[in-house]
Amino acid sequence: MTSSSPLNHSIAELAANLRAGSVKSRDLAEAVIDAQETHESALSAYRDRNADYTRAQADAADSAFAARYELGVLQGLPVSAKDLYAVAGYETFAGSPFPLPMYAKEGPVVRAVRQQMAVIPGKTHTVEWAFGGIGMNPHHATPRNPWDMTDHRAPGGSSSGAGVSLWQGSAVAALGSDTAGSVRIPASWTGTVGVKTTFGRWSLDGIAPLSPSLDTAGVLTRSAEDAALVFASLDPHVADPWAFLAECQRAEARQFTLGVCEWMFEGNSPGVGEAVKQALDELAKAGARIVKVDVPNLIELHELFRRGGIAGIEFAAFINRPEMAKWKAAVDPIVSSRFSAIQAIPATEYIARMDQIAQMTAEALPVFDQVDAIVGPTIPITPPRIADLQSVEAYQAANLQSLRNTSVGNILEMSGVTVPAGLDQAGMPVGLQLLTPNGADERALAMAVAVERVLGTPRQRLGTPLL
Amino acid sequence: MTSSSPLNHSIAELAANLRAGSVKSRDLAEAVIDAQETHESALSAYRDRNADYTRAQADAADSAFAARYELGVLQGLPVSAKDLYAVAGYETFAGSPFPLPMYAKEGPVVRAVRQQMAVIPGKTHTVEWAFGGIGMNPHHATPRNPWDMTDHRAPGGSSSGAGVSLWQGSAVAALGSDTAGSVRIPASWTGTVGVKTTFGRWSLDGIAPLSPSLDTAGVLTRSAEDAALVFASLDPHVADPWAFLAECQRAEARQFTLGVCEWMFEGNSPGVGEAVKQALDELAKAGARIVKVDVPNLIELHELFRRGGIAGIEFAAFINRPEMAKWKAAVDPIVSSRFSAIQAIPATEYIARMDQIAQMTAEALPVFDQVDAIVGPTIPITPPRIADLQSVEAYQAANLQSLRNTSVGNILEMSGVTVPAGLDQAGMPVGLQLLTPNGADERALAMAVAVERVLGTPRQRLGTPLL
Repeated sequence: MTSSSPLNHSIAELAANLRAGSVKSRDLAEAVIDAQETHESALSAYRDRNADYTRAQADAADSAFAARYELGVLQGLPVSAKDLYAVAGYETFAGSPFPLPMYAKEGPVVRAVRQQMAVIPGKTHTVEWAFGGIGMNPHHATPRNPWDMTDHRAPGGSSSGAGVSLWQGSAVAALGSDTAGSVRIPASWTGTVGVKTTFGRWSLDGIAPLSPSLDTAGVLTRSAEDAALVFASLDPHVADPWAFLAECQRAEARQFTLGVCEWMFEGNSPGVGEAVKQALDELAKAGARIVKVDVPNLIELHELFRRGGIAGIEFAAFINRPEMAKWKAAVDPIVSSRFSAIQAIPATEYIARMDQIAQMTAEALPVFDQVDAIVGPTIPITPPRIADLQSVEAYQAANLQSLRNTSVGNILEMSGVTVPAGLDQAGMPVGLQLLTPNGADERALAMAVAVERVLGTPRQRLGTPLL
Repeated sequence: MTSSSPLNHSIAELAANLRAGSVKSRDLAEAVIDAQETHESALSAYRDRNADYTRAQADAADSAFAARYELGVLQGLPVSAKDLYAVAGYETFAGSPFPLPMYAKEGPVVRAVRQQMAVIPGKTHTVEWAFGGIGMNPHHATPRNPWDMTDHRAPGGSSSGAGVSLWQGSAVAALGSDTAGSVRIPASWTGTVGVKTTFGRWSLDGIAPLSPSLDTAGVLTRSAEDAALVFASLDPHVADPWAFLAECQRAEARQFTLGVCEWMFEGNSPGVGEAVKQALDELAKAGARIVKVDVPNLIELHELFRRGGIAGIEFAAFINRPEMAKWKAAVDPIVSSRFSAIQAIPATEYIARMDQIAQMTAEALPVFDQVDAIVGPTIPITPPRIADLQSVEAYQAANLQSLRNTSVGNILEMSGVTVPAGLDQAGMPVGLQLLTPNGADERALAMAVAVERVLGTPRQRLGTPLL
């Protein structure tokens, strides 16, 4: 995004500017289209985009402003949608080679976006069926991480185009989904803010599934304050987004106890743990209480995850449906080669895993008696170079590493946020993950806003990628 | 129960008598103990009973009455508990040969019973792990159906002692549980009223599980009015049981449209379908609208059920837990012989079955746009003679038949009630099943009370068994 782009403001500022008439939604749309035309050949954030449709949506939003309709925070603002979400006017591929007519009807999250007359300028890339944390896709482009314009590095997945769309300057918020980290990983690796909502809080209708027991809808933004506003404008339980933002802005670092999880620092790439520790030091100076916590069962949890957990089973059951035969035949061989092993897993083993997860979740909950959030690096490793992941073994090792710390939040039923902590030794963004209990989404966002006031916004903390 | 028993009244009358001081809870307890001593050798309703404990509970309830404590409808009244329920003062065997220390702590349903100071005079027999509809048990006694004192006929299962305890005169309500019919089957075959609650409405904590996706807690009573009162006194959503009973008493048959499901009349034993059609004719004369309904997918549903559905899988997963090894080794060979086949069912097949069930449930729901309840015989067959079920084949055929019509209500997520319709050609009770949508428990009970006003109470409709 060029510094002269009219999008180069916070969502609160943009909303005020639109209402003051100092900028039109159409101006924003033109900036979006311009950004896409400038950057898409290098960055490939979008599976599909449509300039005419973008302009038409923006014009409608401007007409609504002119007629003094007040439809919500996102009115007239560009919001990209991961290509798992059904959005009127675009097809849904879910990263597969074929459009999915069964995911054509908008669900509640997209309806909440569009009832505010936000402008959806396109569908961002996703890993095929969201099954992977790196961001690669054999059928469509793998977006480029904008923080390295020399080597093609992983953008993070599965919402692989989401974070890229934000830096590219074509969206102020990006809809993603998170089954084992798929919002937080691209947010962390692209230096943006990612919100992992409580399971079940946001409807999954109208979103192609990966693992119905773990899938959550979420959002990436360019700052924690933006995240608070967007979250509140989409969440069915928050009445007034502006009041919620004001509440988040009153939160202070000294109100929070952050529990450092040493396990999440294991095997970190050079500079990753250091960036997070540096951020925690600054938060401690600002008054936050930093303690160590022992989250029970993490080794067992990761072992379960390595064996495929439950997501692989649920995905295999979905893709086995008779109506999915065409898509099953097309699945990336790296994934489909595991189908026969997955299909040999007995039902009783699946239920035993679910029981084990319920047990581990119950045992983790008391941690939150001592701390407001469990914290550590969002991802242990620096975004790998795509060229280094051409063997199945290299890909699978990096994939497991990418999901290692985030999957804890899904399996143990937590909500959470990732905010940028700094840059690692490769000059790539590092995220600080804040994991909060199930249902504490509001607290996670208030904490993220308080943390941002200490560390700075992503742009202040990291600078900008060399686009 | 002798006609001179002080229990020989409705719950509403007994509650009034206790409050007027014309009868003491201790008097009722002595009648209960007397009934147990008179009938248990022939009927075997109880796995365990304790006269001293029964007296102590009754004396405490009387002390509470004397001190003008008003604790609820069931204060001072005898309520039997199926031996899946943890109850202080009794062990839980769940029909297995060994006590289960992990089911010693009372859950919310039993707490709701005991906070009213009801008197629990014993734990009634259950099929081992509630896995079966006939009522047989290889480790403990199989209760005798009191309607045939010549041949030992099935009492219905899995709450096999529940209905027997009511006719025996040792309880005015019997806690049961219903996974595929286990409240409604013993209620139907013993000529009592059985309530199948909406899945998830009553907590399953403190109840040994069979199939956590299908298990429901429920209750058997000696009349529909009693059922309404007991349901309301235990239900977390009904505020005032007496107001609820009055509301049910205002309901009239002419307010309801009953949808006759012809499929439920297939393969009926002589006199079963006839008794139900006779009852429906009387209801039509009283103004009820009787129509035919086509419940979709019943053949597919029954085929899924024949293949074991999901309950067998979930039970196998439970009994496979390391801490259950002792109990697994003891499971009835008729059941355990199927374990290896069940354990070969893939997880993806289990999920596919769950998906199929969700689909069938959604497709059945529109039936309730046309009718208030789906009606038919609760059980297609007369209670078989235990002597006729000694081969595995004969047992399994009868077991499947016993569960055929009731399992529809569990798999398609319905609530419901069974009330006596008449006697079949063998002189055994026949139940009229009323299936209502998920969450319409109150409507089911109002309908049952209205039906009872037309057909008479069980005792008026059927007479009494020859005890």
